[in-house]
Amino acid sequence: MTTTVSNDQRAALELLSGASSLVLVGHVRPDGDCIGAQAALAHGLTSIGKTVQIVNPDPPGSEFDYLAREFPYGVYEAGELPAHDLVCLLDFNDPTRCGAPLQTAIDRAPSKKLVVDHHPPSGGVWWDAAFLDPSASATGLLAYRILRELGAEIDAAVAHGVFTSIVTDTGWFRYSNTDAETMAVVAELLRAGVDPTRVYASIYQRKPRTEPLALGALLARTRYFADDRLAVIDHPLDAGAANDLSDSDTALDVLRAVESVEVVLYVRELEPGNCKLSARSKTAYDVNALARRFGGGGHVKAAGASIQGALPSVVERLVAAALEGFEG
Amino acid sequence: MTTTVSNDQRAALELLSGASSLVLVGHVRPDGDCIGAQAALAHGLTSIGKTVQIVNPDPPGSEFDYLAREFPYGVYEAGELPAHDLVCLLDFNDPTRCGAPLQTAIDRAPSKKLVVDHHPPSGGVWWDAAFLDPSASATGLLAYRILRELGAEIDAAVAHGVFTSIVTDTGWFRYSNTDAETMAVVAELLRAGVDPTRVYASIYQRKPRTEPLALGALLARTRYFADDRLAVIDHPLDAGAANDLSDSDTALDVLRAVESVEVVLYVRELEPGNCKLSARSKTAYDVNALARRFGGGGHVKAAGASIQGALPSVVERLVAAALEGFEG
Repeated sequence: MTTTVSNDQRAALELLSGASSLVLVGHVRPDGDCIGAQAALAHGLTSIGKTVQIVNPDPPGSEFDYLAREFPYGVYEAGELPAHDLVCLLDFNDPTRCGAPLQTAIDRAPSKKLVVDHHPPSGGVWWDAAFLDPSASATGLLAYRILRELGAEIDAAVAHGVFTSIVTDTGWFRYSNTDAETMAVVAELLRAGVDPTRVYASIYQRKPRTEPLALGALLARTRYFADDRLAVIDHPLDAGAANDLSDSDTALDVLRAVESVEVVLYVRELEPGNCKLSARSKTAYDVNALARRFGGGGHVKAAGASIQGALPSVVERLVAAALEGFEG
Repeated sequence: MTTTVSNDQRAALELLSGASSLVLVGHVRPDGDCIGAQAALAHGLTSIGKTVQIVNPDPPGSEFDYLAREFPYGVYEAGELPAHDLVCLLDFNDPTRCGAPLQTAIDRAPSKKLVVDHHPPSGGVWWDAAFLDPSASATGLLAYRILRELGAEIDAAVAHGVFTSIVTDTGWFRYSNTDAETMAVVAELLRAGVDPTRVYASIYQRKPRTEPLALGALLARTRYFADDRLAVIDHPLDAGAANDLSDSDTALDVLRAVESVEVVLYVRELEPGNCKLSARSKTAYDVNALARRFGGGGHVKAAGASIQGALPSVVERLVAAALEGFEG
């Protein structure tokens, strides 16, 4: 698998090549792509003789403990960053995304700053070099490309990092960013020792015994609107077994699996007068626009919001607003 | 991607190479692997000048209509098979698996018989040649290897067939048969024009509006055994809303997502005294061995059986047999 390297990317590789000690920084509440890209670069850069430390604003989720066992994920608390000559910022390009305290520490460090990211650039250039590609399925895929270019071995530890990035950012190969390069790289990762079943089990099969019943109770609350194009689940405080649910993703998937459904709204009452919206779209319907009307946001196909008000009235307002999106 | 070709497989390729008109036969209730392998071979063999017809005991499911629109899936009714010089039997190696009427017609035809399959051979050799590999993730992968060996082009129509086989038999890349060869081939299929998001929507997002409620009702029937290592759902004739369920796969997935669960049994009463088992394993636990004790079979991690008896007694016998597998 070959991909072309731009001049900007070449400059980024040279900066990385010349560095001897690095701090890898992720964004707040680091997701699988961020955590995985860090694992890949941490192992890969160490293997070619560099000193690497990970410093994040938040710890990784327990579903990624198979990565955390292999390399320490440091959490920033206060003061100066550990000694280093290059900061590598992963999976974000808006400098505020790593949180104000860590951002301040990075700004104060005299080191060079390198950004590695697949999100579309959201502002001006504040870095010394950047390895950017918004067409890449995951930042972990960029980590893979970088390590290949630097001649680092793609061993099992690196491969698990890249694989974690790819599967979490492609929705386990279901989203439209799943392209041929991604799959060809995944083939290499499996050759390097990744066991997809074990990774799948770590990330997605760690639910409590109450999950099937809780999911069933939640699904029983499904209501349809707009000729079944809109599916809505409300989740009040007194929802009984549904309150045991550990993860709403499966419920959202089940509603999206209904052929007629284009938009899914899941509205949970977190405490009296405080509701949380998770919105998903299967089509071009823009749930980001919907969420923004309620003070939230996200992406076109996945967005959320925190909404004040009693659950029934919040749901009523949301449904009314969502229905407007089907008109015209 | 290169795989070695055995002498038996070489003989199968020669038989195929020498044939000019083929009938492709699948098994009863053909699944995605069977339908996909047929699509791949139908298009690929046609492209190298052969005449191909598909004759199955049952029609493909509507979720595969994107394949059926491109090549007719004939359904056997009675009488002789269409004129041909080679019958290619796909995705099974037990000759009874295509149903008695079609089996009789095949037996009566003077043509040579070729088996292409990835299931472990279950009996003696009754074919003229066979392209077998139980280590292959899907029969469609064997179709891909065959077409490569014969020099056929892997165009978009072939690629959609192979992709359908692979995704349905690997549980969309989640099962342990998802190996490096499979992923490398998938990369080629995406290059040939497969859009994974569209195929995913076709196969998995066409459920009726009743599905969330039906799934919820079914999940409410979950019972655990063996310290929550075994999860069982029984589905009687009078199961109310659960009877609307169009597809039990999601329920099986939800049970497998419970961390403690290693084995899942779903037992549905199809008519009084006639039950159907679907068994799944998340570990090395061999549900094929379990299913065989009840006259069924399949793979180590996914198997099924038709079992005579009243549902409660069938479930009791199955649970008792399954518990033995946890001992020692």
